[in-house]
Amino acid sequence: MRFSSWRGGGSSLSASEAARALLDRKTKPQGSLGRLEDLAVRLAGIRGEANPGQLRAVIVLAAADHGVAARGVSAYPQEVTAQMLANFRAGGAAVCVLARQAGAELRVFDLGVGAGTADIAEGPAMTRERAEDCLARGDAVAAELAAEGFGIVALGEMGIGNTTSASALVAAFLEVDPEAVVGRGTGLDDTALARKVEVVRAALAANPGAAALGRLAGLGGFEIAFLAGVASGSASRGVVVLLDGFIIGAAALAAERLSPGARDAMVAAHLSPEPGHRLVLEALGLEPLLDLGLRLGEGSGAALALPLVHASLAILDEMATFESAGISDRDG
Amino acid sequence: MRFSSWRGGGSSLSASEAARALLDRKTKPQGSLGRLEDLAVRLAGIRGEANPGQLRAVIVLAAADHGVAARGVSAYPQEVTAQMLANFRAGGAAVCVLARQAGAELRVFDLGVGAGTADIAEGPAMTRERAEDCLARGDAVAAELAAEGFGIVALGEMGIGNTTSASALVAAFLEVDPEAVVGRGTGLDDTALARKVEVVRAALAANPGAAALGRLAGLGGFEIAFLAGVASGSASRGVVVLLDGFIIGAAALAAERLSPGARDAMVAAHLSPEPGHRLVLEALGLEPLLDLGLRLGEGSGAALALPLVHASLAILDEMATFESAGISDRDG
Repeated sequence: MRFSSWRGGGSSLSASEAARALLDRKTKPQGSLGRLEDLAVRLAGIRGEANPGQLRAVIVLAAADHGVAARGVSAYPQEVTAQMLANFRAGGAAVCVLARQAGAELRVFDLGVGAGTADIAEGPAMTRERAEDCLARGDAVAAELAAEGFGIVALGEMGIGNTTSASALVAAFLEVDPEAVVGRGTGLDDTALARKVEVVRAALAANPGAAALGRLAGLGGFEIAFLAGVASGSASRGVVVLLDGFIIGAAALAAERLSPGARDAMVAAHLSPEPGHRLVLEALGLEPLLDLGLRLGEGSGAALALPLVHASLAILDEMATFESAGISDRDG
Repeated sequence: MRFSSWRGGGSSLSASEAARALLDRKTKPQGSLGRLEDLAVRLAGIRGEANPGQLRAVIVLAAADHGVAARGVSAYPQEVTAQMLANFRAGGAAVCVLARQAGAELRVFDLGVGAGTADIAEGPAMTRERAEDCLARGDAVAAELAAEGFGIVALGEMGIGNTTSASALVAAFLEVDPEAVVGRGTGLDDTALARKVEVVRAALAANPGAAALGRLAGLGGFEIAFLAGVASGSASRGVVVLLDGFIIGAAALAAERLSPGARDAMVAAHLSPEPGHRLVLEALGLEPLLDLGLRLGEGSGAALALPLVHASLAILDEMATFESAGISDRDG
């Protein structure tokens, strides 16, 4: 059974309601699949049909370098970004393994590996024109993927230093102190953590102004701006946007500020231990599916949550109803 | 790379240590895949090899009726057990859909549908001989599945009234008040919930004694005793036992009391909203992978967690190492 309806703003209320009604006729106590049912209802709303069937998934993995990495804000040297880009292409990285497991395609984009952003602690990461170009490239990729028939776009990132950029963006967008958002990234000790807080503070001072595009250009990364474009471009085309961790959260926040309503198409795969991630998800009104202490990035958490997305769609599509199975409903 | 070592008591420490060392050489910051890495380490210990490779999974779904259902402790009439058994066999139930999604085989066992236990509020559910027979049947099934090459056995159950039986078992094993464990099952209102607490209290009074087998016979169900046998039989053969929700938790607790150490082979798929489930997992020392408000049973939560189990094994088996990928490790 398919239910078509008007689709707008990344979410259709009537399709969601029809999905909930369909779930309530399935052979299970109402609501007994908990948040898996809520997820199915949201997916129906995003797709604009009560029973979207199975959706093909792609992971968009974007990599770029960050000038701020020279300040020792990461436990890894900057050349690791380029080395990991090669690892993604060779299929040996975690997200490659997890994408195969989840039956998702993986597409890798080099947004500026080797030729990264300027140091945000001294001034803007990039010009506004460059930020607009990254957003437009992201939107173009979203358009291509939608045209190819992908119904789910999962987002992943790689870039030594990019939790610093993400922390600065989140602190600016949410107007909170850097101490509330800065975390250990992929493994900083206490001294390096304190330095990272000071670098974020310097970045905020060096990049004043409250306009969303200016903040993205001032504090962002090329991959973050590109992924914000992929997110808003996918949302506007009724494609489910599956978020990964904290850095993707910063991109999602930028997308929502630039294209209000984009969050309606977003699904939060997991909660990262980075302290700012919970703030981002609260601001977006999203509840994460997994909480496994994942702090790798690359889209690895999104890949791990994909089976839950597919499972919720399968429940809508494949389960028997009380009528079809001849089963007594509750209370006799 | 495979690392063979002595296997005993459901867990090999040296295989776990070798798995952790292998994970630390993978192209990711150490520990950055969080609990997915801890899961891989536990699976290696259970299998007795650092890299077990992929494991075939089967869901053992056992159904039986419960005399106590006549007391109105469920929102559904007792005939639903038999109707759902037919639904499992026809492939229309939630667990059928989720097993297909997870690539797991589903095997359904009728332990006494229509010919259920006696009312536990008045006396023993079954004789000790019958409980021993259910346990032995479970052990025989575990032996067959291990011989067929399954490396993961997930447990599921169906039986109108069986959260009452499970609540009584958990209250008895953990020596806590029924109010601390009894929940709404698949959808009780306040009045019915209070009645269920009183029924559990009556069951505990009608079935005194502290021996594990006596408690299982007095308060259990045929499917619960059978699944306890599957759990301990699988654990003793180095097969991973994937638990579902609260009722399976009661079976797991019985297995651990009857065969101490069985919990070493157990993985908790999810945390159910039934209040007693958290107590069960704490007693078994297990941390659930998912927390999605699932309260259906059938093994549905176990099926939903299976992709995480497969993913953790794939990380061990397929990811590149820093050496193989030529990537700089941390701090240059």
